[in-house]
Amino acid sequence: MKLATLDNGTRDGQLAIVSKDLKRCTSASAIAPNLQSALDSWSDLYPALEDLSRKLNQADIAGKAFEPHLTLAPLPRAYQWIDASAYLTHLQRVRAAKGSLQNPQDEKPIMYQGGSDHLLGAEQDIEVNGDDLALDYEAEIAVILGDVPKNPTEDEARNAVRLITQCNDVSLRRLVAADLQDGFGFFHSKPATAFGPVVVTPDELGAAWQDGRVAGQLQSRVNGLLYGQPRTEKEMVFNFYRLIQAAAQTRHLRAGTILGGGTVANTHDEILPISSDGVGFSCIVEARMAEKAADTDQRTPFLKDKDQVSIQFVTDDGDAPFGEIKQSVAVKTA
Amino acid sequence: MKLATLDNGTRDGQLAIVSKDLKRCTSASAIAPNLQSALDSWSDLYPALEDLSRKLNQADIAGKAFEPHLTLAPLPRAYQWIDASAYLTHLQRVRAAKGSLQNPQDEKPIMYQGGSDHLLGAEQDIEVNGDDLALDYEAEIAVILGDVPKNPTEDEARNAVRLITQCNDVSLRRLVAADLQDGFGFFHSKPATAFGPVVVTPDELGAAWQDGRVAGQLQSRVNGLLYGQPRTEKEMVFNFYRLIQAAAQTRHLRAGTILGGGTVANTHDEILPISSDGVGFSCIVEARMAEKAADTDQRTPFLKDKDQVSIQFVTDDGDAPFGEIKQSVAVKTA
Repeated sequence: MKLATLDNGTRDGQLAIVSKDLKRCTSASAIAPNLQSALDSWSDLYPALEDLSRKLNQADIAGKAFEPHLTLAPLPRAYQWIDASAYLTHLQRVRAAKGSLQNPQDEKPIMYQGGSDHLLGAEQDIEVNGDDLALDYEAEIAVILGDVPKNPTEDEARNAVRLITQCNDVSLRRLVAADLQDGFGFFHSKPATAFGPVVVTPDELGAAWQDGRVAGQLQSRVNGLLYGQPRTEKEMVFNFYRLIQAAAQTRHLRAGTILGGGTVANTHDEILPISSDGVGFSCIVEARMAEKAADTDQRTPFLKDKDQVSIQFVTDDGDAPFGEIKQSVAVKTA
Repeated sequence: MKLATLDNGTRDGQLAIVSKDLKRCTSASAIAPNLQSALDSWSDLYPALEDLSRKLNQADIAGKAFEPHLTLAPLPRAYQWIDASAYLTHLQRVRAAKGSLQNPQDEKPIMYQGGSDHLLGAEQDIEVNGDDLALDYEAEIAVILGDVPKNPTEDEARNAVRLITQCNDVSLRRLVAADLQDGFGFFHSKPATAFGPVVVTPDELGAAWQDGRVAGQLQSRVNGLLYGQPRTEKEMVFNFYRLIQAAAQTRHLRAGTILGGGTVANTHDEILPISSDGVGFSCIVEARMAEKAADTDQRTPFLKDKDQVSIQFVTDDGDAPFGEIKQSVAVKTA
């Protein structure tokens, strides 16, 4: 089942069911006004949502055209957004840039608590104050959870995965060092994260959902140029079940918690531009670190005003089940 | 005006108006079902809430007994919980303990993004898995905000303060070092924060709300023993308006954001026990660091099973406008 949140002028938007081919949608507001309320009573409401989805896909309901630019984030405001770092290759590359933190360990996942009160839809602008902040994207896979008890078993973690999508964890690299030196973690350097136009239930992915990992390629492009297409199941050291268990080590997680798997990264020694069968990167800072490692100029620029970033997960069957993130950069100078 | 959230079996609880003397309350659910929905439409709903408050205080409405043990957190789940550190004395004392981070600066406030999906009511237990986590309390003042635009002016920040209360930022000291070494900030070391049984509008504080600071003493007790009563307006280097401006430097803040001022601390060279006119501490780790500095045994223990923590802000008139936090520790061993 595919779901989306349509902009209806309210803070939480309107819940909609989207057809498998992403061409049509229909309001689900008679079942639940918005996605959070559906997640609050998921087991009770799931049969009715699934029934509506079946009718839409069988064309028993005509629905209306699905227009991704009219979506908000699946949860325009969420009670929790946790971003983990399950691809240690990303951590290794980025930390080489800063040179100040310990090497990543593969014993336990690390994660940060992100701001969740203001999340962006798939085609909403990345608004930044000033053009000197080293604006970067980070392409990731994220899951949305049901209630998770404190210190959960693996089964409890597995059963808590309600929905899956892709996201863009927007980063202001110029502010990362200051945030980390303060010792309290990312704050100013991580403004609003953007999410795919649709979220899907695990069964919707079929063979592309494998033991808590999404299997396929996460394509990212800047101004149409392919920057990366690493495989999402490869080198994901901790699957989402492990990440959930780690996140809930000392706390309950409430329904609607969004958990990111971290910037997707596969090991290679390429630099940009990559060929059509290259692997590439899921963020600009990694591309720049690869250039540095190759003794080349750090020529890949950070994002600037009017740049376009697109992020799309593609299965081995060529499907893009989460639709596409397509954002423009809008710099405001004082 | 004083408001509270009563436990009615729902995730967000029921909005209630509480009398000035904290003895009676009446449901406000005909105006807004819960506090978040009131904050979402604050200017529209404020006159009706204030009218209800006036009737309750004039005894035009009898109401029912206000029972703090039946309250949930004002926002049992919030879209954002940011905790700043405006009392640099606290940072200096605590960082001496860890010895690993740079000295705090007074140029800009530092803050972390806390977990907000699961917040505790004033008399809900502090549940901890295991008794070896060096459980500590942190007594703080917190404000709840309306919508704040990105990069706000001081006036915009001032006008965004909707409600004020006290809180207990529960901390697992044994996990702080590991969290900070991971470089992503506090996570496992900061489980659910607890809040006062009532939240009040700034005007309700009268002379005790002074230029973005609450003026009075924040008393904290463990098992009835006075651990601290520092003055909240003293040595608060950044007032709440400055903290709001800093928090919104690169992001919008949405209505319902909770912002803590940090552990309240005044400079002195006391150790526990303090006299009835002593200053003391707003957390245990500071008391232990003072013992170390005085070449005394670090004898003040961290919290253990069945310990009771109480936190109460008291004005110079002897009022306790936010009521009292009274929590018991409940350790679960596997």
